Amino acid sequence: MTNATQLLGISNAIVDILAHVDHETIEKLQVAPGSMTLIDERRASEIYAMMGPATEMSGGSVANSIAGFANLGGSAAYIGRVKADQFGEIFNHDMRSLGVDIRLAPAQDGASTARSHVLITPDGQRTMNTYLGACTELSARDISAETVGTPRAILLEGYVWDLPEGAVLTQKAIELGRASGAAIALSLSDSFCVERHRDAFENVLRHGVDIVLANEQEVRKLLQTDSFDDTLDAIGVYDNLFAITRSELGSVVVHGDQIVSQPADRIEKLVDSTGAGDAYSAGFLFGWIERWSLAECARLGTFCASRVIQQLGARIEPGLLDDYT
Amino acid sequence: MTNATQLLGISNAIVDILAHVDHETIEKLQVAPGSMTLIDERRASEIYAMMGPATEMSGGSVANSIAGFANLGGSAAYIGRVKADQFGEIFNHDMRSLGVDIRLAPAQDGASTARSHVLITPDGQRTMNTYLGACTELSARDISAETVGTPRAILLEGYVWDLPEGAVLTQKAIELGRASGAAIALSLSDSFCVERHRDAFENVLRHGVDIVLANEQEVRKLLQTDSFDDTLDAIGVYDNLFAITRSELGSVVVHGDQIVSQPADRIEKLVDSTGAGDAYSAGFLFGWIERWSLAECARLGTFCASRVIQQLGARIEPGLLDDYT
Repeated sequence: MTNATQLLGISNAIVDILAHVDHETIEKLQVAPGSMTLIDERRASEIYAMMGPATEMSGGSVANSIAGFANLGGSAAYIGRVKADQFGEIFNHDMRSLGVDIRLAPAQDGASTARSHVLITPDGQRTMNTYLGACTELSARDISAETVGTPRAILLEGYVWDLPEGAVLTQKAIELGRASGAAIALSLSDSFCVERHRDAFENVLRHGVDIVLANEQEVRKLLQTDSFDDTLDAIGVYDNLFAITRSELGSVVVHGDQIVSQPADRIEKLVDSTGAGDAYSAGFLFGWIERWSLAECARLGTFCASRVIQQLGARIEPGLLDDYT
Repeated sequence: MTNATQLLGISNAIVDILAHVDHETIEKLQVAPGSMTLIDERRASEIYAMMGPATEMSGGSVANSIAGFANLGGSAAYIGRVKADQFGEIFNHDMRSLGVDIRLAPAQDGASTARSHVLITPDGQRTMNTYLGACTELSARDISAETVGTPRAILLEGYVWDLPEGAVLTQKAIELGRASGAAIALSLSDSFCVERHRDAFENVLRHGVDIVLANEQEVRKLLQTDSFDDTLDAIGVYDNLFAITRSELGSVVVHGDQIVSQPADRIEKLVDSTGAGDAYSAGFLFGWIERWSLAECARLGTFCASRVIQQLGARIEPGLLDDYT
């Protein structure tokens, strides 16, 4: 393992505020169960007031993948905007404590650090209401040849396209990455996000992105297909490497005419399915950067995902690779 | 159940920052395993930097009891000082969401909201390093006839004597409470705290305090006895009601020549022993305020404690009383 940064994440830096609620509360809030809704600060206060006692921990989709990648023993760096407030301190502390190199200093003013109000219903489903706060002020100026450096890969998330400068700054990151020889990976975030930015995602898939990390619903929304077979056909016109998770059906990796199927691991006890996709991405990219075969990348991704859903919390614990055979 | 406040808590309002560490880290920090050490802000930063990724939730010993009391269906109020920062918002949100009436507004300036860095070793033991921050600025002025009101009981904690104005403000609370007809309960906090304030505790036990809530070690430290039998003899000279928890030996309640023994409940799986004493206090005081027999108070206290040690987190979950038969 070299000390040079292998994977750089650029994404929304978010603190999760988790609480258990009943289905009635979800109905009252008029949000789609299991979805991620963007909210403003007023609405955030409203939702927080409706939540019971909560637990706070750092989160964010690609940030979770970066944390997991570092825990696997990879060398990782991160660009995301937090404010210099207590939530910002929590976020940066947690990333740094895993050895992640934080490339952007906390902002001294502007909106407060982002938080996602995560409502957990008795069926274990999570409905997220995210106030993007400081993230919305992430700008193209924060992405420079210096902060990007020369990683083996850059991991972006679809959610970043929701930011005012999202399209511009990801474009800059892709250009700087390609100029430095980095591969570009994109996590599609969620199917509503794909709906919001389908044209933009299609465009970056043809111009810059090498690896697409997504679940089946997201890929189908992107390619507007009705079945998984149609999806595989539609992928045929793209040069990108697709790593597609399918819950209990495992995952399928497609690259050109190469198709690798990885069955799911046996799950003893499903504790919390949050973060399964992010953990898969961490494992997959770890293998990919180490130049493993696609089958081996998929196998480690699946291993990470199945571990994370059997624990509380969305992030892979340190030492996970010790158990991998 | 009446809407009038039954129980008022006055204590340190603290946000817990929890992380798993190895025994080596505890040694390196030179703190006694299982103890609570008071630290300044510089030391807090040092310890935080040595901790891995953490989880934040509201805590504090008597605050946990008040939250538990509210969850049992009791009507509770609380006086504790937080700053108007993100941790202060977390603390007040969590109390309010349980229906607790917060009687002191967050401070606009001064030290930041208190946090306790809780280091959990692989054996499940918790070592706490507490930066008291805003708590240290709690003053006698914050305790008035108006903020105290007319509760059936006031619950104080030994830790408050660590505050600069601790002795003065608890004295004022005791006087206001007695004037309004409230009983005064004191949780002895921990045996190191008893060591720090033995004379002060002995004095308030003779002048003002009605109910002492403590574990065996704390009572023995207070009365300087070597065995539990000696402790029972030493209690004989006090008029106070003592509710003493003894871990797997259950609890013993002593009042004058009345001695009630309550065996421990059978524990299926010990998850985390933190908060057992606070939960016992919540249950015991709930029964006491409802004028139950001492045996029934002890039985509910034990039920609450045995529930809380079979879950993660120090606070009793809502609806617990539904399972009590």
